[in-house]
Amino acid sequence: MLLREERTFFLATHINPDGDALGSTLALALALEALGKETVIYDRDRIPEFYRFLPGSERFTSSLPKHPGHLVLLDCNEPERAGLDNVTVRSSAVIDHHETSGSFGDIRWIVPQAAATGIMVYHLIRDLGVRLTPEIATNLYVAVAIDTGTFRYSNTDAGVLRISADLVDAGADPGALARALYETWSDRRFFLLIRVLGTLELMNGIAFTHVTNDMFHETGTLPEDTEHFSNFPRMIDRVLVSAFFREMDGGWKVSLRSKGEVDVARVAETFRGGGHMNAAGYKVRTDLATAKEHLLRALVAAIEAR
Amino acid sequence: MLLREERTFFLATHINPDGDALGSTLALALALEALGKETVIYDRDRIPEFYRFLPGSERFTSSLPKHPGHLVLLDCNEPERAGLDNVTVRSSAVIDHHETSGSFGDIRWIVPQAAATGIMVYHLIRDLGVRLTPEIATNLYVAVAIDTGTFRYSNTDAGVLRISADLVDAGADPGALARALYETWSDRRFFLLIRVLGTLELMNGIAFTHVTNDMFHETGTLPEDTEHFSNFPRMIDRVLVSAFFREMDGGWKVSLRSKGEVDVARVAETFRGGGHMNAAGYKVRTDLATAKEHLLRALVAAIEAR
Repeated sequence: MLLREERTFFLATHINPDGDALGSTLALALALEALGKETVIYDRDRIPEFYRFLPGSERFTSSLPKHPGHLVLLDCNEPERAGLDNVTVRSSAVIDHHETSGSFGDIRWIVPQAAATGIMVYHLIRDLGVRLTPEIATNLYVAVAIDTGTFRYSNTDAGVLRISADLVDAGADPGALARALYETWSDRRFFLLIRVLGTLELMNGIAFTHVTNDMFHETGTLPEDTEHFSNFPRMIDRVLVSAFFREMDGGWKVSLRSKGEVDVARVAETFRGGGHMNAAGYKVRTDLATAKEHLLRALVAAIEAR
Repeated sequence: MLLREERTFFLATHINPDGDALGSTLALALALEALGKETVIYDRDRIPEFYRFLPGSERFTSSLPKHPGHLVLLDCNEPERAGLDNVTVRSSAVIDHHETSGSFGDIRWIVPQAAATGIMVYHLIRDLGVRLTPEIATNLYVAVAIDTGTFRYSNTDAGVLRISADLVDAGADPGALARALYETWSDRRFFLLIRVLGTLELMNGIAFTHVTNDMFHETGTLPEDTEHFSNFPRMIDRVLVSAFFREMDGGWKVSLRSKGEVDVARVAETFRGGGHMNAAGYKVRTDLATAKEHLLRALVAAIEAR
């Protein structure tokens, strides 16, 4: 097995990293180091402020090493998703739970049924025989927590809860981590949320909200501050899909969050995006009104098709 | 053991019942019935609309039986808390996780360390040798979910997660139950929340928000729709206390939610109110600006005293 045999690894995860990307990558890096390996941990983007509590997060670099060596790509399965378009590596392995039609990787370990990449890394670390330290457990717990909405999404099963219990035994602190994840917003970010919720429009079971560059400017916030914003309108009973539009150079980045059997990955694919059944996204280069109109049509069809 | 020997039981829980009260009571009733016993399930208050999805919830009655027989009091430990001030019973048992200085009950089983009464009832049902049906598992899962903030509060430990995994194996559906608990707001209620968050003022680590009668009127909402509103500003890192003012006949009802060691019960007491350390309230008959000013002074002192 590659991870046992080689000595130095280049671990990379996707741009705009979330808790599963960061937590699963850090956990694997810490486990490999416990086996005496050397690792470089890469993310093209800077680590969001509110994830800096993750043990080891200061080790992430956005500089490419001269000789990347053995690449392990986590929580994504194409090098482009990690901003690694033209990097030459000696070998490559992929660990991911996203659906894919790609073929990158000498080793491809892709389990779409896994609730989080962190769940896969948990099993891998167990197989490697590495002891779960509090630092590894904390990173994996956050990975699982973020991708299951701390056990609220439908991907939460008995296995997810049992693994999380093991992580708590190993030193992860559920109360402290929930506070770190959900109660550490800057006041600017909260004021931005209020502005964004003020844009709410409801139609046909779909909630539309958006954020403009002006709103970022006026509140002193950054695009990363909008993480989770798309989840809030899901609180409404009759909302089946929450669509959140974020302005970006000459267009909009659209995040879709759905309930139950409404497949937004399919919808995102028709706009050349992708994702999971209940969480997907894409980019468009039209004005907001047009973008909403096109999406509305596609979503109404998806809701009917469920 | 009383539960094995007797044949008919009167199960009661506290007024203003929450998910732990209802779920643990229903789960025990269903388990006793699986053993061939008869049960009457009592709550003095009506069951809130959003808990009607609990299996068996239609069985709750607010009529006292003529001969209550053997009382089992759940999630509280004094008959007054259940509105049972003057009821004569043949015997009484208490199952609760709240601290107490009382002495009611022939059998008193009180475990303040238990995250929920539902956790205690889970162990009891296991001891009774009753199979966990999907109905029992669903009630217990909701009991645990509500009292742990679905695994976000500091009372969440490895045992809570493992028991919840067992409940999922027995038929509780985490995603569906989270939707039933957290995603069934009316759109009116959500629009009211947006209005209320728009009143946010931050000073000295305190978040002030308020709702007026006009806002209820304009959004077509009721005072009960503001439940949980006071929790939202806690998301902000530097907020130590969230104070929510609700207009009511000639004055304001004030809800206080604090983090960590800030004791808002003490503050509420100085205004002739009360509560727990992190959740308390009181009523005032001044204008809003004066009420805020008085509260600000008291809270600044409480924050310094922590």
